[in-house]
Amino acid sequence: MSAAESFMRRAIEEARKALGRTSPNPPVGAVLVKEGRVVGVGHHARAGGPHAEAAALADAGEEARGADLYVTLEPCDHQGRTPPCSAAIVRAGVARVFVGTPDPNPIVSGRGIQRLEAEGIPVEVGPLEAECEALIEGWTSFIRSGRPWVIAKVAATLDGRIATRTGDSRWITGDEARARVHRLRDEVDAVIVGRGTVEADDPLLTARIPGGRDPLRVILDSGLGIAPDAKLLTAPSSAKTLIACVGPAAPERADRLRAAGAEVVECASWGGRVDLAFLLAHLAARGVVQVLVEGGARVFGAFLEAGLVDRLLVHYGPVVFGGGPAWTDAPAVDRVADALRVRFERAELVGGDLLVDARPIRDRG
Amino acid sequence: MSAAESFMRRAIEEARKALGRTSPNPPVGAVLVKEGRVVGVGHHARAGGPHAEAAALADAGEEARGADLYVTLEPCDHQGRTPPCSAAIVRAGVARVFVGTPDPNPIVSGRGIQRLEAEGIPVEVGPLEAECEALIEGWTSFIRSGRPWVIAKVAATLDGRIATRTGDSRWITGDEARARVHRLRDEVDAVIVGRGTVEADDPLLTARIPGGRDPLRVILDSGLGIAPDAKLLTAPSSAKTLIACVGPAAPERADRLRAAGAEVVECASWGGRVDLAFLLAHLAARGVVQVLVEGGARVFGAFLEAGLVDRLLVHYGPVVFGGGPAWTDAPAVDRVADALRVRFERAELVGGDLLVDARPIRDRG
Repeated sequence: MSAAESFMRRAIEEARKALGRTSPNPPVGAVLVKEGRVVGVGHHARAGGPHAEAAALADAGEEARGADLYVTLEPCDHQGRTPPCSAAIVRAGVARVFVGTPDPNPIVSGRGIQRLEAEGIPVEVGPLEAECEALIEGWTSFIRSGRPWVIAKVAATLDGRIATRTGDSRWITGDEARARVHRLRDEVDAVIVGRGTVEADDPLLTARIPGGRDPLRVILDSGLGIAPDAKLLTAPSSAKTLIACVGPAAPERADRLRAAGAEVVECASWGGRVDLAFLLAHLAARGVVQVLVEGGARVFGAFLEAGLVDRLLVHYGPVVFGGGPAWTDAPAVDRVADALRVRFERAELVGGDLLVDARPIRDRG
Repeated sequence: MSAAESFMRRAIEEARKALGRTSPNPPVGAVLVKEGRVVGVGHHARAGGPHAEAAALADAGEEARGADLYVTLEPCDHQGRTPPCSAAIVRAGVARVFVGTPDPNPIVSGRGIQRLEAEGIPVEVGPLEAECEALIEGWTSFIRSGRPWVIAKVAATLDGRIATRTGDSRWITGDEARARVHRLRDEVDAVIVGRGTVEADDPLLTARIPGGRDPLRVILDSGLGIAPDAKLLTAPSSAKTLIACVGPAAPERADRLRAAGAEVVECASWGGRVDLAFLLAHLAARGVVQVLVEGGARVFGAFLEAGLVDRLLVHYGPVVFGGGPAWTDAPAVDRVADALRVRFERAELVGGDLLVDARPIRDRG
């Protein structure tokens, strides 16, 4: 690993601290290096707060003059809730800038780099561009599509089941895989499950890792039939629980759930069920950049069928049930040629389980 | 890689040439090295023929004197269909012997090594012991258990299906994964499928790779209902087709199938179906060391339920069907605690598919 790579890696580590905490902004990290020594580090900690570059410049103080800046994402060149980073970098007397990846937003992409170069500061894209891109994969998709990046996370047996024929499902995967799910919850803005999953498992859907930040919890419940004593509504959490129903909601049911602390959101109907595109648009409007869909089979099927899954994580536990429901009931195709296709990105053996990262392939139409 | 490792690797390559051709003997390879130069190579090409050591000694001729022998498996010390290799090694004046792995047969293990050492030839176990063990994994199990090593190979979707709800199944996996299956067929002694698979797919079950050797093809067909015009019976192959039924067989059906060239084997019944332990004992008696079970779901289920699967290969194609049969219908458990458990050995992305190698865990009883 070259020195430049190790500094950019440090900047990526800084950015990681911000995962799940900056929406609707991206996680960004920055490092200032002078004569081979790190003189300042920073990350964008929350929307509205200082950008990573500003935080690193503040950390370095006078040492910033003549230093090299490594920043995972192209510095902004516009006045938002905070002043443009390009100007701050120039003012601080930074010598050179290494940009992990250009801004993916087509409206501003390249502007920060051009401004710095116009001010006489050499700029290089990279090193570790692919990693810097991967860090903001969800945000990039959000910026370009206008809807949240959707991760579907399935825990299934080798034969594709999510429960035995009698409904037993705890646990299919082991501690390490489940810890990864808690980390994922910490990094996304919202988690979505169906009412059936709440009734079967009564989950908390919180991020139970040290320093974890709970996501907004969203329950798909078209008829608002969920019991107000579900743990999602009663157990303490820093995060809200939102119940997405088909509007108009029955007032007394909605009131009862609101009284239990939930937020009720009336959605458009899609065949009597919650219109997922409507729901995602609602979530995007409130700054939700990434969502994690955790089941059950009908919910996975509905998201897949609607073409709304960007990343499909299947965690296979080392078990075979030989019966019980498969993890998705849609899109139920007749011909292999019509099947939903994915691209495998990665497969890993972790703590006795097999974790698969796949990307559904969009229709070419 | 050390020099010794590179020579043992060469011996392993030699042994690989023999995969599937030596039953009921193991595949073995040998290399003779003198002053850093390979002076002879050989492998055990077929049961009854010269052992690998004898082949390598013959290949080296007078050059064997003073050479080092690398052999993947401990040389034998007993008179079988061929003379003991230990004596031939001594006679040829070999200087040192590197043994990939001791003979796993408890009755003879260590004897070859002891004999060589008693004759003053230094012996070392290794290098690459784990690879040499892996090379004969199936044979080792066969020697110790008395029944063939059973590999179950499944081609399934990410949601665990082997066909769409209308029965379409061609193809779930891609060319590279399917080529691996042809290689597997080339390496095992027999392939087993159920009658349902023959009726649905009308497969050949041959090893369609360059130089491929077709395995014995076995059809589970308790009532001998298979049509005599199935390709397995009519298409040309160097291998026989065996139909395993529950005895006593209906004579006219058996005669008709025999007339089509098949061998009919009457097996014990296990709940009206072919008793798989009986069938495997029959196959072992005719020298079948490794079998490959290729489906369908009832057959996979029956083998898993009987605890007769040693290695489970699941080839996941990059598709989701959302409906259709799962790849196994047994053992259908009620509680997660009672599920069949496996140990993941390896997961690989190959040609767009995900190939998983898992080992069912035997009950501790």
